[in-house]
Amino acid sequence: MAGETGRRIVLASRPKGEAVPENFRIEDFAPAPLRDGEFRVRSIWLSLDPYMRGRMNDGPSYAAPAEVGGVMTGEAVAEVVETRHADFALGDTVVGAFGWATHAVSDGAGVRKVDRKAAPLATGLGVLGMPGLTAWVSLNIIARAVAGETIVVSAATGAVGSVIGQLAKARGLRVIGVAGGAEKCAYAVDELGFDACLDHRVEGGAVELSRLIGEAAPEGVDIYHENVAGVTLEAVMGHMKVHGRVVVCGMIAWYSPEGMKGAMPSPKLWRTILTRRLRVEGIIVYDHYRRYPEFLAAVTPLVQDGRITWRETVAEGLEAAPQAFLDMLKGGNFGKQLVRVGADPV
Amino acid sequence: MAGETGRRIVLASRPKGEAVPENFRIEDFAPAPLRDGEFRVRSIWLSLDPYMRGRMNDGPSYAAPAEVGGVMTGEAVAEVVETRHADFALGDTVVGAFGWATHAVSDGAGVRKVDRKAAPLATGLGVLGMPGLTAWVSLNIIARAVAGETIVVSAATGAVGSVIGQLAKARGLRVIGVAGGAEKCAYAVDELGFDACLDHRVEGGAVELSRLIGEAAPEGVDIYHENVAGVTLEAVMGHMKVHGRVVVCGMIAWYSPEGMKGAMPSPKLWRTILTRRLRVEGIIVYDHYRRYPEFLAAVTPLVQDGRITWRETVAEGLEAAPQAFLDMLKGGNFGKQLVRVGADPV
Repeated sequence: MAGETGRRIVLASRPKGEAVPENFRIEDFAPAPLRDGEFRVRSIWLSLDPYMRGRMNDGPSYAAPAEVGGVMTGEAVAEVVETRHADFALGDTVVGAFGWATHAVSDGAGVRKVDRKAAPLATGLGVLGMPGLTAWVSLNIIARAVAGETIVVSAATGAVGSVIGQLAKARGLRVIGVAGGAEKCAYAVDELGFDACLDHRVEGGAVELSRLIGEAAPEGVDIYHENVAGVTLEAVMGHMKVHGRVVVCGMIAWYSPEGMKGAMPSPKLWRTILTRRLRVEGIIVYDHYRRYPEFLAAVTPLVQDGRITWRETVAEGLEAAPQAFLDMLKGGNFGKQLVRVGADPV
Repeated sequence: MAGETGRRIVLASRPKGEAVPENFRIEDFAPAPLRDGEFRVRSIWLSLDPYMRGRMNDGPSYAAPAEVGGVMTGEAVAEVVETRHADFALGDTVVGAFGWATHAVSDGAGVRKVDRKAAPLATGLGVLGMPGLTAWVSLNIIARAVAGETIVVSAATGAVGSVIGQLAKARGLRVIGVAGGAEKCAYAVDELGFDACLDHRVEGGAVELSRLIGEAAPEGVDIYHENVAGVTLEAVMGHMKVHGRVVVCGMIAWYSPEGMKGAMPSPKLWRTILTRRLRVEGIIVYDHYRRYPEFLAAVTPLVQDGRITWRETVAEGLEAAPQAFLDMLKGGNFGKQLVRVGADPV
């Protein structure tokens, strides 16, 4: 910044039902002078993630809601452009919760440096960032996956699902994806190497999807990585094996009142927890940030040698973020949704 | 038996909605000759338990459904009256799945001996039997309770709930019971030593019950031992602390289609698993039978020195079992529901 005017996107109003473009507003802001212990970044890549929809609502969640009039929260890869902080030098590339903005000031809390030689910078928001860590923790720490088990991964081609499926394949599990549409399903099988992938938009809803899961996993499902709720949850639960594990990572179908109308969870789901002695456990990746070094050590080599691949959907320019976000909530993205906010460092 | 005619209660028909007396039939049966490796018992105490309601339905459950025309399954304390089994001697007192019957033949599978000097025989079906083991496993193995935590126990004065609450108190937890009616609540506090007990029949349903739980546990609930589902589950979930544990042990309110009409679980419950990072785990005590010795070693002294107390509701005679069972499903019992089938050993 250093004199430059910044741009940011703020929450203009809380959604009533579905989120709409009018819930966002773009505005300019003047640079604030740095204090000791602070540094300024310019953002390069902004990550858009489904959890942000929850922040737009008022009321209790696992994080404080965004303020109306406040900048939308979000993680970005950024470059340090001005510093009065001993640990962050000019030109460092970092990932932090810098928000939907071209520039931000930070005291370093929750900011980690990324090695731009290890992998492309944007991976710090994807396979080697929060979604990758989420996938790795889900499989290893929560589900405690064992070779030979069968896992169902919803949102299979999304930022988290695609990594969890690939990690599970590398681990020797049988991997069944669930995704929206034939194109995504083909990608999951052909490029990500899933054993099967089912289309949750199939005619016949939960009943037909359940039948397809039964075909793909005739001996049942050991692990369900739950990212979407709704129809898919209903369909998978009936196939869970005794002592199966359900990792509850996202409930995108139920983030809005509209979505809840689609597929109410039935009491059967709770009975199934009892009768199959399932372990159903919620995961929020923030609880596991201390595992970043362990995760990076395990997964960076898999990224470098191509055993973990990914796709990105890129929106150009900060002003494109709101529409890209709304599209993503409806499944319009393919792979990790990014916004190109600034140029790569020279 | 040895010549005596036995009596047994069979499933006459599957319930449509609520179970009714006509779903049961009492009949006589002739004694079968023993084969090598078998022994015959005469039952003394029969245990009635909510899980039996599930067995009356067809369809998948954690155990095979009872057959129409077959004897109702159930655990009993019994005395060996004839034996061709090397490990079971005449006069041994044993607990096993001998069914709703005056006599039974067994090959010893799943049968354990009980020490009639250690505690009254009927405790082998209660505080020192399956319900006690369930409570002990829930608290120690599933919930991993820690002193200073707050636990909510539904069906607080029932066979499992009363033991879990007393074990939790002995462990240094804060214990909040939920039970049906003022009399049961007073018993939980005055005799079982719970810190508080709330009446789920309170006017205002889940909303009011939730308010009362908030008063009793202003800092939130670490552990919920779930025995009833319905209104209580809805009310407690909103008070779960981050990283809380929900042990799903019974869902009596949802065992019948009628019960399901009362209180459908809302999608909010699933969102709460995510946002609070709960661990929700089903428990079926059969998975934990190998822990009987460990459990008996830990809990028998507490029974002997009076730190664990209990109540029993006794129905007299095998023919009284169906009505006692139906009453129990509606909360008519107070403490462990037993049927006195035969006299104590001399």
